[in-house]
Amino acid sequence: MKEIQVQSSSHLYNITIGEAIRFQLKDFIASDYSSVYIVTDESVADLYLQEILENFSETKVSHFIIPAGEKSKNINSFYKLHTHALKNGLDRNSLIIALGGGVVGDLAGFGAATYMRGIDYIQIPTTILAHDSSVGGKVAINHELGKNLIGNFYPPKAVIYDVETLQSLPKKEIRSGYAELVKESLIADKAFFNTIIQTDLQTLTNKQLQEHILVGIKIKASIVESDEKESGIRKFLNLGHTLGHALEAELGYGFLTHGEAVAIGLLFSLHVSEEIYETKMPYLPLIEWLKTNNYPTGMHQLEPDALISKMKTDKKVVNQTIQMVLLKGIGEPTMKEINDHDLKIYLNSFVQRLVGE
Amino acid sequence: MKEIQVQSSSHLYNITIGEAIRFQLKDFIASDYSSVYIVTDESVADLYLQEILENFSETKVSHFIIPAGEKSKNINSFYKLHTHALKNGLDRNSLIIALGGGVVGDLAGFGAATYMRGIDYIQIPTTILAHDSSVGGKVAINHELGKNLIGNFYPPKAVIYDVETLQSLPKKEIRSGYAELVKESLIADKAFFNTIIQTDLQTLTNKQLQEHILVGIKIKASIVESDEKESGIRKFLNLGHTLGHALEAELGYGFLTHGEAVAIGLLFSLHVSEEIYETKMPYLPLIEWLKTNNYPTGMHQLEPDALISKMKTDKKVVNQTIQMVLLKGIGEPTMKEINDHDLKIYLNSFVQRLVGE
Repeated sequence: MKEIQVQSSSHLYNITIGEAIRFQLKDFIASDYSSVYIVTDESVADLYLQEILENFSETKVSHFIIPAGEKSKNINSFYKLHTHALKNGLDRNSLIIALGGGVVGDLAGFGAATYMRGIDYIQIPTTILAHDSSVGGKVAINHELGKNLIGNFYPPKAVIYDVETLQSLPKKEIRSGYAELVKESLIADKAFFNTIIQTDLQTLTNKQLQEHILVGIKIKASIVESDEKESGIRKFLNLGHTLGHALEAELGYGFLTHGEAVAIGLLFSLHVSEEIYETKMPYLPLIEWLKTNNYPTGMHQLEPDALISKMKTDKKVVNQTIQMVLLKGIGEPTMKEINDHDLKIYLNSFVQRLVGE
Repeated sequence: MKEIQVQSSSHLYNITIGEAIRFQLKDFIASDYSSVYIVTDESVADLYLQEILENFSETKVSHFIIPAGEKSKNINSFYKLHTHALKNGLDRNSLIIALGGGVVGDLAGFGAATYMRGIDYIQIPTTILAHDSSVGGKVAINHELGKNLIGNFYPPKAVIYDVETLQSLPKKEIRSGYAELVKESLIADKAFFNTIIQTDLQTLTNKQLQEHILVGIKIKASIVESDEKESGIRKFLNLGHTLGHALEAELGYGFLTHGEAVAIGLLFSLHVSEEIYETKMPYLPLIEWLKTNNYPTGMHQLEPDALISKMKTDKKVVNQTIQMVLLKGIGEPTMKEINDHDLKIYLNSFVQRLVGE
């Protein structure tokens, strides 16, 4: 079992990573909550809800189950979460538990942030991808005009990461999670990047997975501690996300997983970084690793203009100009304003390069 | 012109009270916002929107107008506020201005708190009641099951209170605002209470009004500075609100103004305080002043059971027990758990006392 502490603006919280710790939640949760409200999705509920409920035999507990998938992260689910919580008598001393992946974590966290102006919540991530979203307190729902546009910065009281729950993940979800690990490595840790691209996701061991998640969370935690509200370096965590989010929105949520879209976004960031800084980035090793591990890398049917339009609903846009995270080298992220004209040129040359590889 | 400074958990902000200061907003607002988004209601827009817009001849500005009244403080207006803001290109460096009363302030503030996870906003209150709601950062929308149940603590960057805008207020709104001033006086300042109940609202002068608002805001600001997140003494500001909110919900929003409902709630708090602490409270002087000033004080047709049920959706409820703010004396507020059985007795004796007066 490993513990990482994160100092947020309002409190200190622990991220605990271990095996089978979902059966001993009481070790990590204060005992004086008046009630517990578990938010999860249909798929995770089938696998783990009963086990989680058994931790609370002496506490008043209720739950709220959403359909699995990004489409649940909307204003209607948000309102229903409140309605159901009110009907179950949740009060200001209640605890919300987010049991699931990023969609559940973001929705439940935003529910907690806004329920009676804010109650405690805990993240119990059940995907690799959620190693990223469960740490740092970014909570949100999607707007029909873009992802994560309605939300708060609201750190959890604890993150309890039972890696046993990752064993049943489909390959697509493993790929999705590893894209964020690649991102973290590119931002902060060249050795970690080299480790990942030597890892075969088909034969991934539990030991490897735990090690990688631990490094990823440490990078993430260190960044959000320095800049919780994303006024500076936290923006670097959006590496690959400007195009990634646009791809998800343009193709329709669910067509690509978040991580699959981010993986293409990371390639694009490397491509633009090479163009602008005239430096050699690991574009080739990354695309080879992505292909070996069955990430979708074809996007040549997409219109640059449509993508640019979607990119403009990104929260990093200021004065209608797109801000991209680029790299001067691995571990050397930087922010760069890119005008529409240049962006279109980069998108076109990127698509050609993808087709050519 | 008077200034009061408030230290919030995230920043220091000024409350400026003066005449005609709506024409010189640039003196109080940072100049480097990428755009300004004014949220107001139909009534206030007719009176002041044009004047406010003229402050921003050199800034990109857009506006969002809601129907006047409590019914606009709902999830649909909240989502529309976001949609309209996105379509107008608001970014993270934009400013939201809440121009209006408490409904506008609460909705616009919650919009700002959640737009791209939080952007700056400024309160320009145009009612007496909003002297209370515009200070301290409580922002929220209503849920169909109760008032202000979905929200955040999110302090404004400034409060700019142009008392000239209060001159056109209907009598009903003056009464509504004065109920919160009475509340503040009961919590903290006996001399102020005596001043108010010697004030005839029919012949109120601008000078009196400014003086009263200044004292009220000072009381409010001092309390929220000590306890921004309402873990302790800020709860005292809910004096009169447990029954007040229940009355509004039970009678249907708009039947009584917020302040008219709070006024009855204050009488009830004095009544229960007398019963529990066996002390003499200024119940009689207050009800006489309320009647002289045309506050509605008849509620004998109401069912205690229905009111208790509504009271239980109050955010102060813990473990299904209602927490009331009571007074051991003027300036000596305290919190008290009251069980349903006792509450019903107090409600019945209160109704009889109201009928008897």
